[in-house]
This record gives sequence, C-alpha cells and structure tokens, in this order.
Amino acid sequence: MANFGLDSYFVTKVPANPIGQSAVNHLRRFGVNTGFIARGGDRLGIYFLESGASQRPSKVVYDRAHSAIAEAKPEDFNWPEILAGARWFHFTGITPALSDAVAEITLQAAKTAKGMGLTVSCDLNYRKKLWTTEKANQVMSRLVQYVDLCIANEEDAEKVFGIKAADTDITKGALSDAGYKDVARQLVERFGFKYVAITLRESRSASDNGWSALLYDGKEYYKSRKYDIHIVDRVGGGDSFGGGLIYALLSGKQPQEAIEFAVAASCLKHTIPGDFNMVAVDEVEALAGGDGSGRVQR
Amino acid sequence: MANFGLDSYFVTKVPANPIGQSAVNHLRRFGVNTGFIARGGDRLGIYFLESGASQRPSKVVYDRAHSAIAEAKPEDFNWPEILAGARWFHFTGITPALSDAVAEITLQAAKTAKGMGLTVSCDLNYRKKLWTTEKANQVMSRLVQYVDLCIANEEDAEKVFGIKAADTDITKGALSDAGYKDVARQLVERFGFKYVAITLRESRSASDNGWSALLYDGKEYYKSRKYDIHIVDRVGGGDSFGGGLIYALLSGKQPQEAIEFAVAASCLKHTIPGDFNMVAVDEVEALAGGDGSGRVQR
Amino acid sequence: MANFGLDSYFVTKVPANPIGQSAVNHLRRFGVNTGFIARGGDRLGIYFLESGASQRPSKVVYDRAHSAIAEAKPEDFNWPEILAGARWFHFTGITPALSDAVAEITLQAAKTAKGMGLTVSCDLNYRKKLWTTEKANQVMSRLVQYVDLCIANEEDAEKVFGIKAADTDITKGALSDAGYKDVARQLVERFGFKYVAITLRESRSASDNGWSALLYDGKEYYKSRKYDIHIVDRVGGGDSFGGGLIYALLSGKQPQEAIEFAVAASCLKHTIPGDFNMVAVDEVEALAGGDGSGRVQR
Amino acid sequence: MANFGLDSYFVTKVPANPIGQSAVNHLRRFGVNTGFIARGGDRLGIYFLESGASQRPSKVVYDRAHSAIAEAKPEDFNWPEILAGARWFHFTGITPALSDAVAEITLQAAKTAKGMGLTVSCDLNYRKKLWTTEKANQVMSRLVQYVDLCIANEEDAEKVFGIKAADTDITKGALSDAGYKDVARQLVERFGFKYVAITLRESRSASDNGWSALLYDGKEYYKSRKYDIHIVDRVGGGDSFGGGLIYALLSGKQPQEAIEFAVAASCLKHTIPGDFNMVAVDEVEALAGGDGSGRVQR
Amino acid sequence: MANFGLDSYFVTKVPANPIGQSAVNHLRRFGVNTGFIARGGDRLGIYFLESGASQRPSKVVYDRAHSAIAEAKPEDFNWPEILAGARWFHFTGITPALSDAVAEITLQAAKTAKGMGLTVSCDLNYRKKLWTTEKANQVMSRLVQYVDLCIANEEDAEKVFGIKAADTDITKGALSDAGYKDVARQLVERFGFKYVAITLRESRSASDNGWSALLYDGKEYYKSRKYDIHIVDRVGGGDSFGGGLIYALLSGKQPQEAIEFAVAASCLKHTIPGDFNMVAVDEVEALAGGDGSGRVQR
Amino acid sequence: MANFGLDSYFVTKVPANPIGQSAVNHLRRFGVNTGFIARGGDRLGIYFLESGASQRPSKVVYDRAHSAIAEAKPEDFNWPEILAGARWFHFTGITPALSDAVAEITLQAAKTAKGMGLTVSCDLNYRKKLWTTEKANQVMSRLVQYVDLCIANEEDAEKVFGIKAADTDITKGALSDAGYKDVARQLVERFGFKYVAITLRESRSASDNGWSALLYDGKEYYKSRKYDIHIVDRVGGGDSFGGGLIYALLSGKQPQEAIEFAVAASCLKHTIPGDFNMVAVDEVEALAGGDGSGRVQR
Ligand SMILES: [Ca+2]
Ligand SMILES: [Ca+2]
Ligand SMILES: [Ca+2]
Ligand SMILES: [Ca+2]
Ligand SMILES: [Ca+2]
Ligand SMILES: [Ca+2]
Ligand SMILES: [Ca+2]
Ligand SMILES: [Ca+2]
Ligand SMILES: [Ca+2]
Ligand SMILES: [Ca+2]
Ligand SMILES: [Ca+2]
Ligand SMILES: [Ca+2]
Ligand code: NI
Ligand code: NI
Ligand code: NI
Ligand code: NI
Ligand code: NI
Ligand code: NI
Ligand code: NI
Ligand code: NI
Ligand code: NI
Ligand code: NI
Ligand code: NI
Ligand code: NI
Ligand code: NI
Ligand code: NI
Ligand code: NI
Ligand code: NI
Ligand code: NI
Ligand code: NI
Repeated sequence: MANFGLDSYFVTKVPANPIGQSAVNHLRRFGVNTGFIARGGDRLGIYFLESGASQRPSKVVYDRAHSAIAEAKPEDFNWPEILAGARWFHFTGITPALSDAVAEITLQAAKTAKGMGLTVSCDLNYRKKLWTTEKANQVMSRLVQYVDLCIANEEDAEKVFGIKAADTDITKGALSDAGYKDVARQLVERFGFKYVAITLRESRSASDNGWSALLYDGKEYYKSRKYDIHIVDRVGGGDSFGGGLIYALLSGKQPQEAIEFAVAASCLKHTIPGDFNMVAVDEVEALAGGDGSGRVQR
Repeated sequence: MANFGLDSYFVTKVPANPIGQSAVNHLRRFGVNTGFIARGGDRLGIYFLESGASQRPSKVVYDRAHSAIAEAKPEDFNWPEILAGARWFHFTGITPALSDAVAEITLQAAKTAKGMGLTVSCDLNYRKKLWTTEKANQVMSRLVQYVDLCIANEEDAEKVFGIKAADTDITKGALSDAGYKDVARQLVERFGFKYVAITLRESRSASDNGWSALLYDGKEYYKSRKYDIHIVDRVGGGDSFGGGLIYALLSGKQPQEAIEFAVAASCLKHTIPGDFNMVAVDEVEALAGGDGSGRVQR
Repeated sequence: MANFGLDSYFVTKVPANPIGQSAVNHLRRFGVNTGFIARGGDRLGIYFLESGASQRPSKVVYDRAHSAIAEAKPEDFNWPEILAGARWFHFTGITPALSDAVAEITLQAAKTAKGMGLTVSCDLNYRKKLWTTEKANQVMSRLVQYVDLCIANEEDAEKVFGIKAADTDITKGALSDAGYKDVARQLVERFGFKYVAITLRESRSASDNGWSALLYDGKEYYKSRKYDIHIVDRVGGGDSFGGGLIYALLSGKQPQEAIEFAVAASCLKHTIPGDFNMVAVDEVEALAGGDGSGRVQR
Repeated sequence: MANFGLDSYFVTKVPANPIGQSAVNHLRRFGVNTGFIARGGDRLGIYFLESGASQRPSKVVYDRAHSAIAEAKPEDFNWPEILAGARWFHFTGITPALSDAVAEITLQAAKTAKGMGLTVSCDLNYRKKLWTTEKANQVMSRLVQYVDLCIANEEDAEKVFGIKAADTDITKGALSDAGYKDVARQLVERFGFKYVAITLRESRSASDNGWSALLYDGKEYYKSRKYDIHIVDRVGGGDSFGGGLIYALLSGKQPQEAIEFAVAASCLKHTIPGDFNMVAVDEVEALAGGDGSGRVQR
Repeated sequence: MANFGLDSYFVTKVPANPIGQSAVNHLRRFGVNTGFIARGGDRLGIYFLESGASQRPSKVVYDRAHSAIAEAKPEDFNWPEILAGARWFHFTGITPALSDAVAEITLQAAKTAKGMGLTVSCDLNYRKKLWTTEKANQVMSRLVQYVDLCIANEEDAEKVFGIKAADTDITKGALSDAGYKDVARQLVERFGFKYVAITLRESRSASDNGWSALLYDGKEYYKSRKYDIHIVDRVGGGDSFGGGLIYALLSGKQPQEAIEFAVAASCLKHTIPGDFNMVAVDEVEALAGGDGSGRVQR
Repeated sequence: MANFGLDSYFVTKVPANPIGQSAVNHLRRFGVNTGFIARGGDRLGIYFLESGASQRPSKVVYDRAHSAIAEAKPEDFNWPEILAGARWFHFTGITPALSDAVAEITLQAAKTAKGMGLTVSCDLNYRKKLWTTEKANQVMSRLVQYVDLCIANEEDAEKVFGIKAADTDITKGALSDAGYKDVARQLVERFGFKYVAITLRESRSASDNGWSALLYDGKEYYKSRKYDIHIVDRVGGGDSFGGGLIYALLSGKQPQEAIEFAVAASCLKHTIPGDFNMVAVDEVEALAGGDGSGRVQR
C-alpha cells in the first residue's frame, strides 16, 4: 500500500539490536512508516524457505518461537495513539496465532479500531504449523466480530470456521465457482461481514498457477479475470492481494473494479523476486485493464 | 554476424573515457571490429531494464540524451573509407531517432553505401519514447530510398508509414497471416524494396511468446516455422533476427531457407541471457532443420 | 540413496591433490561414504555444461581424457573388501566407456558382486562422445551377464544392443507405449535380466519435458504416472531415477510402487539446481502418492 | 545523522521515473526523510567508480550533466516551508558547482536558513572535474557569508579561496600541524566563521591512510587523535565527518569531544563497504573513547 | 582435526528438520563424523556476525536461546557408547554456558571420558553475553577437575577464575611475557592441569593482529613464534588453535613443536574465509618450520 | 601491451570447441589480436589457484598435460607469416617446458624472429612443477642464443643456469643489491644479452610485498624505485613487468625511465583483480613519476 501512495504503518515488535534494526530498515526502504514498531524482547522471528518449482512444493521451516512479537505484552502498544488519524486497520490470522498475549493485543487493536470508526480487515491466513483448528476457531471467532472485510481462501474458511464448499479438492486443484460463492455466503451469514473476498488458486504446479478471486458484498458476487501465472516468487502473493483490495476500496473503486485491481496487483507480485510487491498503481491498472501480453514498454 | 564468421564492423561514437572503452571492449570480446568507432563527446548513452516475467512486461528507461552518438557530427565519420571493401550496410530506426545530426549521418552512410554498390538493410524499429510518428515518417521516408531489405514488425509499419493490416490487435496477440502479407505488399509497392521481412511475435506473456516471420521478395511470400519460446532474455531478440537474415542472404541461402535461418537464430537468442546471440551457424541450422527438442548434446 | 538413508559408497579414483580432495568433500557433504575412493593419477576429469533452455539444447564438452579414473589400474580396487557386507552394486555405461582398463575393473567388480550374492544393476547410459556403438556393444555384452536390473532409455537399447522399437522418433518426441514394452521384452529375452526399467522422456523443449517410466519383471509391465516437468536442472535426472529405483526395491516396495517412487524421485531432481537430488523419502512419496500441485507446505 | 537518531531531511531533485524512485528508496532505508525531494527533470546523475587499492588510486567518471538536480529551478524548492522547524542546514561545494541555477538555489537556501535562525554549515569539497577555481571562488565567496561552520581540507581552502599553508605537499602526504592551524586561522579571519574544521588525510596508499582533524573556534585549536586506517571503502568518508561533527555539536558536545566524535565516525565509515555510514552513536563513542583494538564484541 | 587426518566426532543436538540436517551436512563435508549428533528440539541456534575491519570490531548477535542443544537433556547422550574407542575428549566453555542441563551433560561427558582413560581438554572461552563471571566460576570449577589440558587467553583466566597477571591491558594490546607465565603457573597450581596453553592476541586493529601462544607443562614454559597476521576471517581462529594443539600432542610432538604447530595452524585459519580451517598438516608444518613468506607454490 | 596501445598478437593453440573459443574471446576483449591462434588438439590447459593471504601462500595446481598447446606440432605455426611486419617477439620459459615439440616450436620462432630482425625477449619463468633444472638448462641454453632481452628473478637464474648471487635467501626475503647486480652481470657475460632485467620481490607475506627491479645494459645498472604493495591479486604480476618493459623500450624510453615504467606497470597489476593488467600508459606514468599516494582522482 505504501507503494500505491497510501500512508502505511507497520506495527510489530522487534528486538532492540542490529537484527531488529535491519528489519526496520528493510521496511523503510519501501516507504512504510515504522514509527510505531516497539523495541525489545529476545529475538527476531525468522523462517527458512525452500523455493519450489514444478512438482516440488515450496517448503517453510518456521523459527519464530520466543520472537519479540510472540512475547509482546499488551502495554507495548498504545492503540488509541497508534490509530489516531487512520482510516483502515488490517491484520492477518498469523498474528494472533503467535501467542495468547498477541491474540489479546490483536483483539484490543481491532476493538479500538472499530470503536474509532476505522474499517477493519482480516486475512484468515490459517497456518497449520502455528496452531490447531480448534484454537484458531476460538480466537478468530472473537476477533472477526470487529471485522468489516474478511479475506480467505477456501482452505482458511474450512480450517478456521469449519465452513466447507461442496465438490472442491484443493490438492487436485479442481475448484468450482458455485462452491466458492457458497463459502462467501456462509461467512457473511455467520459473521455479518460487509465484504468477503475469496482468492482462488489453481495450483497446477509450483511453477504455474491459475489465480483469480471473488468479492461478495452480501448481495452480489464479483468474479475477477483469471490469470495463468508463470511464477517467479510466490512469497507475499496473498498479502499483496489484501494490500491491493484495501487500496482499491479506500480509493473508492467499485466492487468489480476493486477485485480486478486486487487480483492484478497480486498477479504481478507472483512475477517479482523478493517479498515486496514493487508495482505502481498504473502498472496494476494496465494489467487489470486487460494487457497481460507482457510486451516490452519502450 | 561476427559469431557466424563474417567480418563485422560496429560504427558508433563513444566518449574518450573508461566507460566508452568498456563498451568497446565488450564488443571486441565477440569479435566485432571496433576500428571505426569514433571517440569523443560527453557520455555513453545507457538504459535501465526491468526484466519482465509472466504478466509483468519488461520496462525500459532510456537515459541517452546528450550521449556521444546523439551529439555526433557528420565529420566524425568518413563513410567512403569506412565502407571500402564492405558488401553490406545495416542500420536500424533507433539511430536516426537520436538527433537531426545523426539522422543526417545515417542518410550519408546509406547513400554512400548504395552508391558504392553495397546492399543496404534497415530495421524500422519504431520507439515511441524516442520520437513521434510524424518525425519518424519524415526521416525514415528519406532513408528508405536507399534500402534494399526492409525489416519491420506490424507495429513499425503502422507507426512509421501508416501502413495497416486489417484485423490485427497487437496487445491481444491475434495475428492474421493475410494481414501480414498485406503489409509486406504495401511496403514493396510504396518504396520499391527488393525484400521485406516481417517478424510476428505472439506475446502470450512476458515468459512465453510465439515467434515466426515472413519474407516477401515482391513475388512470393515465404513463411517460417513458428517457435513457442520459453523466454530467458528478450533483449537483442529483434537484432538477432536481422543479423541472421543478413548472414543467410550474404551466404547465398534461398529465401525460404534464409527466413528459417533468421527466425531460428533469433529464437535461440531468446534463450540466452545477455545482449549477444552467442550461437554458431551449425546450432542455428540444427534448429532451422527441425530439432527443437532441446535434447542434451553429449 | 544416501539421502534416502541407505549406507552408500561411491567408488572411483581421484588425484591425490586438493582438486581430488574437493570432489571427495563434495560427496561427503551428502553423506556418501568415500572410504574406498582410490587416490592417484594425474587429474580429475571435468566437463563443461552449457545449460539449455527452450529450443536451445544443453551442450556438454567432456575433458576427461587422462583422468585418474580413466587411467586407473585393476589393482587400485580390492573388490572383495569393498563389497563385503553390501547388498547392491550399481554401475553405469559411462564407466566402462572410459578405457579398456576401466572396463576390465568394472567387469571384475560386477563379477565379484554377483559371486558374493549382491544384486547388480546397470544403467546403459550410452554416450556417443565417449565410444562407438560397436565398442559399447562388445564391452556391455560381457558386463550385463552379471546384471539383475537393467536401466535404459530407448536410445541406449538401440545404440548399445541394436534393439529397436517400432514407430518411435526420439527427436520428434513421439513415443509409443507398445514400442517401449517391446524393447523391455527383447532385453529380458536376450540377456535374462530379472528387471528392465525404461525411462521415457518426451522432450518438448529444453524447458519442458514429459517424464515417465516402465518396469518389466519378465511377466508384467508396470507403467508409471507421467509428469509434465518445468525443468530447473536436468543434470543428474537419469541417475536419480536409478537411485530411486534401487532404494525402492531394496526397501521392499512392490513393482508398481517402486517404479512410481523412482519416477517421482527423478521428477523432483529435475526441479533442483545442482547435481544432487536433495529430497527425502517422504517428499518422494508425497509426490508418488499423487500430490504434484506444488502447494506451499506451511 | 539519521543513523545517530536525528531527524534528517535530504533535499534534492530526482526524475519522476523508477530510477529516481530507486534513489529515494535507497535513502529511506536509512531513515532519511525524503519528503522534500522534488520530482522532475530528465535523468538521475550518476558516477562510475573504480575502487583503488595500494598504489592504484580510485578513479571517478562523472556523468551528471543534465541531471534533474543540475537543471533544477529555484521554484522547485520552497525553503521557508522546507526549513520550518529545523535547527541546522548543511550543504557541500559540490551542489553549487552543478549549475548557476543550483548555485542560486543554494544561496536562497543558505540565506533563508540563516534568516530563520538555523545554524548553517558547508563542506567546501572542491572538485576540479566540476568547475574551475575562479568560478568556485566567485560562487562560494557569496555562499559562505551565511555559514557558521566551514569544513575543508587543505586542498579545498587553497583551490576555492587561495588560502595556503606553508610547507605542505599533498601528494607527498607531508602535513604540518602549524600549516593547518594557519589555514584555519585565515579562514576565520577572512569570513568570520564561528567554527572551522579541517580534515587531515595522510594518503600513504589507496589502502592505508592516516586520518585526523582539527577544529578551530576562533580562539582555541582542538586536534583529534589520528587513526591509521586500513581502508575498506573511502566513498562517503568526508561526508561522514561532516555528519558526525554536526551531530556532535547539535547534541551539545564540547569542541574537543566533538572533533573526536567526528573523526571517529568517519574513521569507521572508511571500514564499511557502501556509501552509508551504518554506525550507531555508541559505536562511535567507543572508538572516540579510545578502543580501536578491533576486538570482537561477544 | 578431521582435516589433519584424525577420526573426529562432533557431538551436539540439532533439530530433526532440514535446518538441522543442513548443519550436519556442512560438518560432513569436512570429514567430521556426525554419527552421534542427537536429533530433536525446537531450533538450531544461530548467530549473526558483522565482520570487522581496521578500527571497527566484529560484532556478534547471539540467537541461541531455546536451541536444540541449549534444551538438550542428559538422556540424549550415551557417553560410554560415544566415547568407546576414543583417545581424546575436548569441550569449550561455551557449551556449559548454554543451560544448567547442558552444564550437567558436559560434566557427565568429562567425567566419563576421564574415567575411561581419555585425555580431556577444555578451552575456557568465556563469553560475557552467555553467562556471568560468578556462574562461569561455579560451573567451570567443577568441570576442570577432569581436565588435563586447559586452553585460555588472559581474559578467560581472569573472568572465569579471577586469575590476573600484572601489567596487562587487553584493549591496549600491551602484553607482558612475564604476566602470561604467571597466569599459566597459577592455573596449574590451583587445578593441577598437566598442560596449560595460553593464546596471546595483540589486537592492533580488526585487520592486523599479533598472534602467538605459550605452553606450560608445570615445569617449563614453551613460547611460540609470533605472527603478524593480516586477517581475512577471525571466526574459528581460537578453535583452530585447540584443534592444532590436540593434533600435535596426539601425534607425539614435543612441547615446543606442539605449540608451534598449534599457533601456525590457527595463524593460517585467520587467512581463510569461512568457519573451517581447511589446511593440511604439511601446510601447517611448512609455516611452523619458518616459511611465512607467502610465496606462490608452483 | 594491447592496453598500452601496441598491436599485440598472442600465438598459441586452443581446441576447436567452445572452451577454446571462450579463451580466444577473453583475449579479444582486451584488444589482443588472436588471428594466429591455431585450433585443434584435445583440451585447453587449466590451472586451479588458491589465492593466498598473509602467511598462507597462493597455491597452484596445474592441469595442463595433453593440452592443445602442449601437444602442438611445428606445422601448426608458420613463423615467417606470423612475424611478418612485427618488431618484437617475446616468449617465457613456461612455453618450452610444456613438451619437446613445443620447445622445438619456440626455438623455430625465436630463430626466425632473430633472422627477420625482430628484437627477441624471454622471461625465464622457471616452474619446478613443469620440468627439472637439468632439462630447463638444456632447453633454455639453446633458446637464449636468439634473445636480446632476458628477464629473470634470482631464483630463475639459479634454477635454469646455476647462476647464484652471494648472500641471498629467497624464503627469508633478504635481498642484496650487490647480489642482484652480480647475477645480471653473469647473465650478460655468459650469453651476451643486450639487456638483462631482474625483478626483486621481497615477500613479507602473501599480502604485502616489496617490489622493484634492476636493468643492466652491459655497462650501467639502472635500479628502480621500490613499491610496498598491498596485494589484491598477484596473478599476472610478473607478465605485466615484461609487458611494461617491452612497451617502454619499444617506445624509446631511456633505461632508467624504462625500468621505472615496467615496475610501476606491474605494481599496478598487483592491485587489480583478475589476470589482465587493465591500466593505461598515463596511469603507469603517473605512478612511475612519483605519485603513489592513492588519492582519489575526481
Ligand atoms: Ca493467504
Ligand atoms: Ca515497476
Ligand atoms: Ca524490432
Ligand atoms: Ca553455443
Ligand atoms: Ca541415462
Ligand atoms: Ca527438501
Ligand atoms: Ca571533502
Ligand atoms: Ca554497526
Ligand atoms: Ca577462545
Ligand atoms: Ca590448502
Ligand atoms: Ca616470473
Ligand atoms: Ca584504469
Ligand atoms: Ni529484502
Ligand atoms: Ni510456464
Ligand atoms: Ni523483504
Ligand atoms: Ni556484457
Ligand atoms: Ni519457466
Ligand atoms: Ni553486452
Ligand atoms: Ni557442488
Ligand atoms: Ni514452461
Ligand atoms: Ni556436485
Ligand atoms: Ni546502496
Ligand atoms: Ni594495512
Ligand atoms: Ni547508497
Ligand atoms: Ni559453511
Ligand atoms: Ni588488507
Ligand atoms: Ni561453516
Ligand atoms: Ni577473465
Ligand atoms: Ni596489509
Ligand atoms: Ni583472464
């Protein structure tokens, strides 16, 4: 979102040492405001990624136990001060999965944001290596009370809330439109979200994916174009969808336009090495507007 | 062409400093004769390339204003001396686009070459970031009087000379054979070229292109095979087509064989990182002769 | 096989200098036992690889004349000692192609192994840059007397033993199931192998291959699934098939399961840069069991 | 200074393209505020550096003609707005050397800063490849009217203002303390500076330099310790001296302490690859306080 | 020691995941036997190193809390089995500093080793970021009961046992021979060691160190040559001294020869990038024998 | 010499494959004329270099047996044609050491050159890994009959011709001026050289060398300045001395000026990574003229 020109703050906790500072510097490079990042704790969480290709899946080894954020305390964050003047608050399901204290911190943040009139969004982002489905259900059920826009993929909805669409098999990559609409409808019905966005990944291999999404506003379904992506780097592909959707809605785009923007933004992220989506609004709009030919611009 | 065993000279102007020398060294590595490169001026033109992938197009930022070649003067080049003993003179539309003086230099070169009995070829190579269609039309119209072989893609013909084929939409990648033949015919009719070669790129994405070409000698149309290329580096893809075609015609190949050689040579360039087409004649002929299976040679 | 947890020994000869030691270190990194590698001779054989892509084939330049192994003498290896306690002995057709002495060494090894009750396997691996078909026929015919499991591709069988399947054209990539079964049947008939495994590569380009295999036990044909691989590095692709098959048979898998394991193992190798197949049994089994979706594991 | 914890703004002009943005991102990484950088113009100035070693000097080829900043116009910068709330304004002699318009912009900035009560500092930084001594004298004489702290090396003072110390020969590296004091005294006398800081580089080779400095406040001379530096990267060595001195004076250090801090900060910069001085206040103070032993901290 | 041709085992605990396996592979490359490394626990301990130069010290950030080894349990290691057939057991003070359980494990190991007749050595290796001097004193005092050879630098002896030599100031790099002899004598007196080895680092800067050592056998002092080292990588410099000394004593070298070998081995390590001392016995002996001229061997 | 602007030809033999071509391309990059390089044979000779530092010497492992040049035949080179129009012929002692045939080729070349009136120079370059002192003596004694300028270091003279200077010990780095003069005098006396140049390397460590040289014209001794070099890459250090000296003599410099130029040229080579001395005449003259301060040129 910083790339798209919005004032963006990243709120977390990093250790007060050169490793924490390096993470802060990395964010600053992209224009993200790091002014509310707390300093302290023992270590920076890391993960190891083996980048997949073709039939070989990417593989992640987490090493974030005892990280500064996992051991953060509620008093590390003064939410009314942090959220003053903001229009939107976003979190993902990875954060509350880190510890009970962090789940509590996330709850305070979401509640405060909602109370201060911000729009609140959440990407369910279920990670089986971080918590069980039972724990996720219990924690996320409380959190989503304050959420306006819920982002999920089919697996997230099933694992976190037990919401299933008929006739879909993730590892087979067979996805039915009707099934996805049904998941979106159930989510709105159960939690009263204003919007539900569902991303649809057809994983033909680690190198080639189909990528599209669905937005549901409680009344209409808005289905995006589908991109057949030749993947360069999947890391951050999901996050860039959330960023694109928030930007699109904040800047007043209509639902169909918004979901096209979000899918195009994250399609482009899949083609960029590294963990940041270094694309500008005009580049996303060129793709969303229909030019996926990849012709050289010169 | 140096790679194919021809004596090749590159004629340009570079600054008399280590940066200019480095460009000369780079050419020498490939056996290109740099003996007629003028030295002087302020700077070496550069460009920045963001290499595309999948739906993300490659992007070029030019920084060649005030380059040594853009500010070259006619007296920097003694064409009768440079062209003595040569059989062929080739230029592209990028050169005269640099400045009026360079357009004038190119005109002198082409005129001298023609007068000395060389074959003259030109790749229209329209670049919208360098000049307008009006200016291109005016300059190129004078230049092509001396041209025997004109190389273009459909966009070039339209942008430079306003010559359009029916029912083709470049960004959609929908190309009709009939349309291309029509463009070639119009070019021969209007300018009296001995040969027109048209390259046909079907840009399915920045990673996957269809690639073929058409040669027209004023009587017959010679259509090449089409390659579905998994692109490694597009830079130099067009230039390597010109190089392949000139080599093929100079070495006496018949039109069908010549266009197959040129397309195979540039197909191979798309699979090689960097800006030089490091392939030998036998490698091109193996592909042109039908083996595109990519089997290991061992 | 070391990766799959088997005690594996690599037996060869390397020069007694830092270059030979570096090769030994490289093997040790992967847990391969290097205790029977002989030291001596003049040089380590090397080869230069130009990695292909799309229509450009990979190209190998061998520089192994006068290598330590090519000039090894029978007395460099004490086979009864080396093979004591082992269950399996494997060699490929590249080794006896190096010199008459090495062919003799290989013969002694195979004969000793057979006599000591080991299972013996051989990958025909015909290399036209190393020997003629006549020489290969003569040498391999003696060697395969001691072989239980013969691994080949269609070209190997034809070049080494003149065994041809009807209606197949390698460079065209058109492979018929019936043809392959016929080759396997002829190999068993002529040499009495217990198993014949034939790998089937459909080389659509240097970047995209179909990959499958066939196992024949003299009675039944076991055909594996076929993988459409987006290739990262082909080097070691064939060897990893042999390694996978030996592991599968040694660990008691049934024929269908064994050929699926071997093909999945070598499919994964094609997606890994470098010359070692760094995959674990569970990764191979996940793919052999049907998940080729390349979804991130997290 | 951003590294030392001060709010720091870098004011310049970069082109409104990805190259300009990349420069901005690079500054942001280090916490420098880029909010007043103007966008526009044709190109980003660049230079090419051949990094020296031992007897081979580093060599710089400038390519900054026609850069966005060299062609900036006074109306690109609203100095009262930019300087509001600031305490210090710093510029170097490289900036006014770029063009008459930029000299004018620098003058407006210095004048405005002085008028608004800021402390103004200037590093003379004479560059013979950018302007003549005559032009430098004329432009800098006007600029230094507004300067409180003047930073120079002996060569700067001589080339810009014709102020010479007796018995010093730069390429011989023979520097006399008395000579430097004399230069500082003359500068204060002629221009009324509050402080003059002179850096003393003894260039024994491109790999090994002596490095120290002298601060003069019109009354006393404060001479720093001298460091024998084994150089990693000289780029930014002078700038980091200025940054260290400004930080030291802004944070209330006494003259001796301030010059020690500045010299230690720039000593450390010489040991860090790249163009930013990534050291923290405590690291500088540890060195300034006397520990140059380079012992591992663990 | 593996490099010097001894059978060497590294005993530790790593997590049963790809990161732990990667550490094991790294050790195997150098011929270290990894057969007794326990698998389990949460994570692999890591540290971040900023490599110093000139006046900038190297800086280490430890991230080893909750590592597999720090949380190891006594039952992870069966010492009688591990030590069967061994001649020597070595540990460093870093290991017992990790946790009380690991201190206990180290004690069992040392006691078992001593009881089985092995020679036991210990490098005190005090690390202030891992434990306090009080804790170190208490733990190490019990451990050294079983130690035959104690390795230390002056700081270690003071921090762990409060043993001080007169007139030495570490950060000043002023070291007196008499002082070191005194420290060695006190160590033997207090703990009854058979040998004490003291390393003497004169840290002139992070790039240039004097390096020598002293061996004391309770009767005589053996002082090595001193090397003025131009440092490439200090990591592992101390460990390689220990490795060299153990090899030298195990292979029957006399005290003077042994200390020369150990110092030469670690001198060479300082000139090799990375954390392993990839030198052979003949290379160490060539240096220990007096050739430090660095002349090319060809 | 190509760098210094002379027309330079490199004459050797490389295999007619991509590896041989790559070596040719590498030479062409630097403007060396490769038109007389013979093609054929089995392989390109290679060597492996471990780059030394401080007390660790560089180490070379040769792998040039059976290289194209080592197995070259006299008929591969037509010396009258190759030498037509040339002014100077240079060879080193490494070439005749490769094989008897190559020694014969070198003899023909030197004899032909001498007969055609060229100046002939030879760098003795004794390599103990290539031949014995007896063989070297026998071969070189015949070759030097045709030599005008002989280049050597003290070790070369002793190993090849048994010519010794008193009181010098190479590994100790203790060099006496008188000794060197004596060696030069003996060489002139015995072989009648017009010039003898002796290089004097004081190898204090692999990182720091003293470097100077002596030229003797049979009457006077010309001693150069001595450089204390902080070495970046020694490879090519000796060859660049020869190149510098030949350039200096060819361009008419007087003896003192010539030896200063040669030593300065090779001093600079020691500061440049890679195997080519990429310096221009003005850079060498600046150093030879006395500026070794390494100050940035900007
Ligand atoms: Ca997600
Ligand atoms: Ca972009
Ligand atoms: Ca083109
Ligand atoms: Ca090739
Ligand atoms: Ca094979
Ligand atoms: Ca794996
Ligand atoms: Ca300066
Ligand atoms: Ca730091
Ligand atoms: Ca230590
Ligand atoms: Ca070594
Ligand atoms: Ca030499
Ligand atoms: Ca240079
Ligand atoms: Ni990053
Ligand atoms: Ni693809
Ligand atoms: Ni990142
Ligand atoms: Ni290049
Ligand atoms: Ni691909
Ligand atoms: Ni290039
Ligand atoms: Ni490797
Ligand atoms: Ni593909
Ligand atoms: Ni390998
Ligand atoms: Ni940078
Ligand atoms: Ni130094
Ligand atoms: Ni930078
Ligand atoms: Ni490592
Ligand atoms: Ni150094
Ligand atoms: Ni390591
Ligand atoms: Ni090179
Ligand atoms: Ni040094
Ligand atoms: Ni080279």
